[in-house]
Amino acid sequence: MNKQELIAQIQQKKSFLCIGLDVDLTKIPSHLLVEEDPIFEFNKQLIDATHHLAVAYKPNTAFYEAYGIKGWQSLEKTINYLNDNYPEVFTIADAKRGDIGNTSSMYAKAFFEDLNFDSVTVAPYMGSDSVEPFLAFQNKFTILLALTSNKGGLDFQGLKTNNTVLYKEVLKTALTWKNAENLMFVVGATKAEYFSKIRKIVPNHFLLVPGVGAQGGNLQDVCKYGITEDCGLLINSSRGIIYAGNDENFAKDAQKEALKLQLQMEAILTKKS
Amino acid sequence: MNKQELIAQIQQKKSFLCIGLDVDLTKIPSHLLVEEDPIFEFNKQLIDATHHLAVAYKPNTAFYEAYGIKGWQSLEKTINYLNDNYPEVFTIADAKRGDIGNTSSMYAKAFFEDLNFDSVTVAPYMGSDSVEPFLAFQNKFTILLALTSNKGGLDFQGLKTNNTVLYKEVLKTALTWKNAENLMFVVGATKAEYFSKIRKIVPNHFLLVPGVGAQGGNLQDVCKYGITEDCGLLINSSRGIIYAGNDENFAKDAQKEALKLQLQMEAILTKKS
Repeated sequence: MNKQELIAQIQQKKSFLCIGLDVDLTKIPSHLLVEEDPIFEFNKQLIDATHHLAVAYKPNTAFYEAYGIKGWQSLEKTINYLNDNYPEVFTIADAKRGDIGNTSSMYAKAFFEDLNFDSVTVAPYMGSDSVEPFLAFQNKFTILLALTSNKGGLDFQGLKTNNTVLYKEVLKTALTWKNAENLMFVVGATKAEYFSKIRKIVPNHFLLVPGVGAQGGNLQDVCKYGITEDCGLLINSSRGIIYAGNDENFAKDAQKEALKLQLQMEAILTKKS
Repeated sequence: MNKQELIAQIQQKKSFLCIGLDVDLTKIPSHLLVEEDPIFEFNKQLIDATHHLAVAYKPNTAFYEAYGIKGWQSLEKTINYLNDNYPEVFTIADAKRGDIGNTSSMYAKAFFEDLNFDSVTVAPYMGSDSVEPFLAFQNKFTILLALTSNKGGLDFQGLKTNNTVLYKEVLKTALTWKNAENLMFVVGATKAEYFSKIRKIVPNHFLLVPGVGAQGGNLQDVCKYGITEDCGLLINSSRGIIYAGNDENFAKDAQKEALKLQLQMEAILTKKS
């Protein structure tokens, strides 16, 4: 998928919602546990119920790896289901990978070619040659961790450097890498006041924003400082949507929560235009 | 495995060699490609030929993920083979993971419990709560990226901070985390001059040192500044050993290369004691 197709989808659905598919077998409705592949069945029903409200889906690979080969199969079935049935949707492998050059190439191949995700999240600590193998794929996006929403996020990301702070160095340096137009950045919603600073460095790149909902971030604040002409935001919600209900109606309950967010997003997009 | 068992193994084998199982189907001997699981067959023969010379094996998960479910099966068979046949060996999942708390817990469970690795490599960028879920496992080790051996390693790791440089901040901060005694650190061999600085911060923790061999690092230099009373080093070689030969004798060729390194290590350990 290219950037224009993503923007067109946002305009058409009046939404910039990303749904995080962080599936934990101890939290899904118990009636699904008799299915051959409960994780995939859960995802399938969620996707069918919300695909008109969300522009992106983001399985966090940790939740699948935790179930070994079975989990990997569930991930593969989920991405195939998305690509076969809702090809307009933007898909994100939330994998936070990053390694030396030839190894990053293997990861890029795994997520972009074999699994055919549109994007993958990548950690910046190992520098240019750990990220550029991902950037080399055209019409695929590399979503670099910049400022994360977790408690320890500022332990290093907020460290003062000679010129600025680490997360800004990451943004600035990444823009100098080859194929930097294929970058997006992870910026946590729990730090809305940072968005105006970040937009001075990356005025046009898409930002993937976790932390709205369960982690306490506020949608209005994020949009106030983070939104661009093309929207430029993908707001992720995981637990707040996928675990909204816990019985046979779970997909409808999830739909209701997604709809609440979509309506807020529609209002923001309408006001902006 | 606990630290004392690792040290005992080093003393018994007179080696601190770690062999990196970075298996690429395009590089392994072609006669193996007819096997049902060529990757596992390659690993099995390598392990059988070198287990008396190496104290640790380190599959890089990227190389397995690149082959999807089949690759994941090869990884599972490899770690099971090691645990069943050579339980004295220290096993490292070179996965470079790290995510928010509940997600890191899933990764820790996947590598420490389900796959039963002794250790896993973890990236520090997301801070304390992305690493502490790994550290919570007793008799398991969390090997934190500090200073990596790749070309772009210093892009961020070498950034000057208010007090020092980023990789030193990572070392110092990590020591304050809960269960810090379960930490080891990745320090690339291509920067031997840094080892004396690093040993001032972490005098006793084990360091996993990639970059000897194919990446140009020098074993003598690393040991001069990095070795401790208990050895405190695991020197990794991947390509230099596993691709030493490319025909029916590949395991013997790998054994020869491993033996060369083991003999150098024996000389270093003997001189030290």
